Amino acid sequence: MKSQQKPLAGLRIIDLSRVLAGPFAAMILADLGADVVKIEEPNFGDESRGFPPFKDGFSAYFISINRGKRSVTLNLKEKRGKEILKELVKKADILLENYRPGAMKRLGLDYEVLKEVNPRLIYAACSGFGQNGPLSGNGAYDLIIQAMGGMMSITGDKGGTPTKVGASIADLTAALYTTIGILTALHAREQTGLGQMVDVAMLDCQICILENAIARYVVSNEIPGPVGSRHASVTPFQAFPTKDSYLVIGIGNEKLWERFCRGIKRPDLAKDERFALNAKRNENYEVLNSILEGVFRSRTTEDWIRLMEKDGIPCGPINTVDKILDHPQILAREMIAEIDHGSIGKLKMAGLPIKLSATPGKVDKPAPRLGEHTEEVLVGVLGMTREEVAALRMKKVV
Amino acid sequence: MKSQQKPLAGLRIIDLSRVLAGPFAAMILADLGADVVKIEEPNFGDESRGFPPFKDGFSAYFISINRGKRSVTLNLKEKRGKEILKELVKKADILLENYRPGAMKRLGLDYEVLKEVNPRLIYAACSGFGQNGPLSGNGAYDLIIQAMGGMMSITGDKGGTPTKVGASIADLTAALYTTIGILTALHAREQTGLGQMVDVAMLDCQICILENAIARYVVSNEIPGPVGSRHASVTPFQAFPTKDSYLVIGIGNEKLWERFCRGIKRPDLAKDERFALNAKRNENYEVLNSILEGVFRSRTTEDWIRLMEKDGIPCGPINTVDKILDHPQILAREMIAEIDHGSIGKLKMAGLPIKLSATPGKVDKPAPRLGEHTEEVLVGVLGMTREEVAALRMKKVV
Repeated sequence: MKSQQKPLAGLRIIDLSRVLAGPFAAMILADLGADVVKIEEPNFGDESRGFPPFKDGFSAYFISINRGKRSVTLNLKEKRGKEILKELVKKADILLENYRPGAMKRLGLDYEVLKEVNPRLIYAACSGFGQNGPLSGNGAYDLIIQAMGGMMSITGDKGGTPTKVGASIADLTAALYTTIGILTALHAREQTGLGQMVDVAMLDCQICILENAIARYVVSNEIPGPVGSRHASVTPFQAFPTKDSYLVIGIGNEKLWERFCRGIKRPDLAKDERFALNAKRNENYEVLNSILEGVFRSRTTEDWIRLMEKDGIPCGPINTVDKILDHPQILAREMIAEIDHGSIGKLKMAGLPIKLSATPGKVDKPAPRLGEHTEEVLVGVLGMTREEVAALRMKKVV
Repeated sequence: MKSQQKPLAGLRIIDLSRVLAGPFAAMILADLGADVVKIEEPNFGDESRGFPPFKDGFSAYFISINRGKRSVTLNLKEKRGKEILKELVKKADILLENYRPGAMKRLGLDYEVLKEVNPRLIYAACSGFGQNGPLSGNGAYDLIIQAMGGMMSITGDKGGTPTKVGASIADLTAALYTTIGILTALHAREQTGLGQMVDVAMLDCQICILENAIARYVVSNEIPGPVGSRHASVTPFQAFPTKDSYLVIGIGNEKLWERFCRGIKRPDLAKDERFALNAKRNENYEVLNSILEGVFRSRTTEDWIRLMEKDGIPCGPINTVDKILDHPQILAREMIAEIDHGSIGKLKMAGLPIKLSATPGKVDKPAPRLGEHTEEVLVGVLGMTREEVAALRMKKVV
């Protein structure tokens, strides 16, 4: 491996996943250098190719999470399609799928079958509810999992209606855990020489990111509800309206509390017995809140941030997406990737947040057109002739 | 490796991280079998030991994210403390820290120094803003990063105020990406023989999970705002009030739309031109919404779920935390771990959502008391005598 080669170079992933959770995991692996061969149904491909917004007829949604992959069309319902998949599995390290549990078995392509084809295969399945349990076979979308997994019950205004997280956090969290599972199985394979199955459920992952809500319930027996934009156990730690918009502050310890009181020119608050320690500030939250609301309404967000940043007080604006694309810190971190998609033009998207010093990953290739690499992969990886591929195309196998 | 040995057995992590993002990453690695040696400041240790809620004086917050680790107290400001850390680094694969960038350099323990001590070391730094850029040295809390990273701008009621996600999603997402970065560097080390630095910023990770909000803005130039509990581009895909509580449904494709209309005994809607395709339903969202609101108010959530589940229509209740701890699917997946903490008793917490078939991880050991394993590690790993450890304790080095 040359020192600047990407860290997962040399690994091949057969990616049968569609829409979000699976493709997002495969995208991270592609950014890190793996050869991701995305297998798509020949007529329409990944259904998210049909999801808005569109740019020149191409789904920007699809494009932004399928960059750097190769697309191969393959009809897995055809006998020849199944054979070709098995040939690809022989030449691969990882297979990733996010079908409903049972679907791969019905295709005759489940782990039990494929591990005979390649015992070193890591077979990763990312599903809504997992490979076992009473709801295993149910369909799931992000919204359903956010609801069932408790995230909605703790998000939203205090006393208000349950609120969904604005992004598909249930899909994305499952994608991240699936990626961890794949890399862990890869490490285990270095020791044992054998692959294994990685089974990740979106619902399970939601439970894991409930964080202290479970601890709070277990200890107090009180059911956590939505708490607005406030930290559940640290005060003041929330958003405040300012003269022009909003400001968030996080006063996480006693030193910061003193510095904060001086910073906002209210040293009296630091000496006030009612607010002496975090536990006290929690108790007297309502009183403190109304005092601070008055304070913050007197200046603009930018003014407050300038004032507090020089004292090292954690604070920030509530940025909208347009602000993020031009943000100096985000640009300095090379977190906005811009990829040329040929006739569609350049498209900005989020970059890779894992910065490695010796063998960095990189976002550098566009998302594939449907079946763009069918011939390249069947010829290059499986050694077929162009004529054989053409014949498969005629028979609608690819 | 025996077939039932945990997948990361044999790896040692020196974990200098505190509070949430770092400790959460180290927890996953511990669940998967790594030996996580948590280095804590001798007087108070990880500051989250002081975070509520408490059980018998112990922080349930701390306990639930530090299970399975070993705690060693070490004063890194003392010369001898630094020497001992370097000795531990020689015997480790990974060092993890989540200090503000610059802090490790001030201690004389940054990557440039430690890679000389152990060239195979993977040095993972998880920070608010990353190791470079104008805001690099700023402090950050989850709330600040959710605000600055755009997540708050797209979460909340439509037209309402920006809302924080109810869990510390900025910390947790960074933890998951850091874990991926560590495992990726481990794979690269198998090829190159050398470690490297892994630099992950909470802010960067938030950008990555904005998902289609960036694509929508880039294509339309419209700034995405909060959309309540509704999917931004698929309809109907949201929460509805029922006779007794709430229900979420996700009608993700045309087949489901037809089945859904039959399921709710409104086959007329499937034939209605205004709702013929998803694009149409998006356009005529308001009309459709008021029709469906009327429909769903006529029965209880449980009734609706029973009715729709048999037709395979994605739907679910909005579960609160108490429901999750007893949920048959979550229990079937062994997602609630219960660990005996001796005098504190047993404590329930979220389990490990990565299910591996051959070398599974497991949540099996409690969180450590402060310094519980100081002697065990210094004697067992570094070969000190008990007398030497006692002397270090006298000098307040450990």
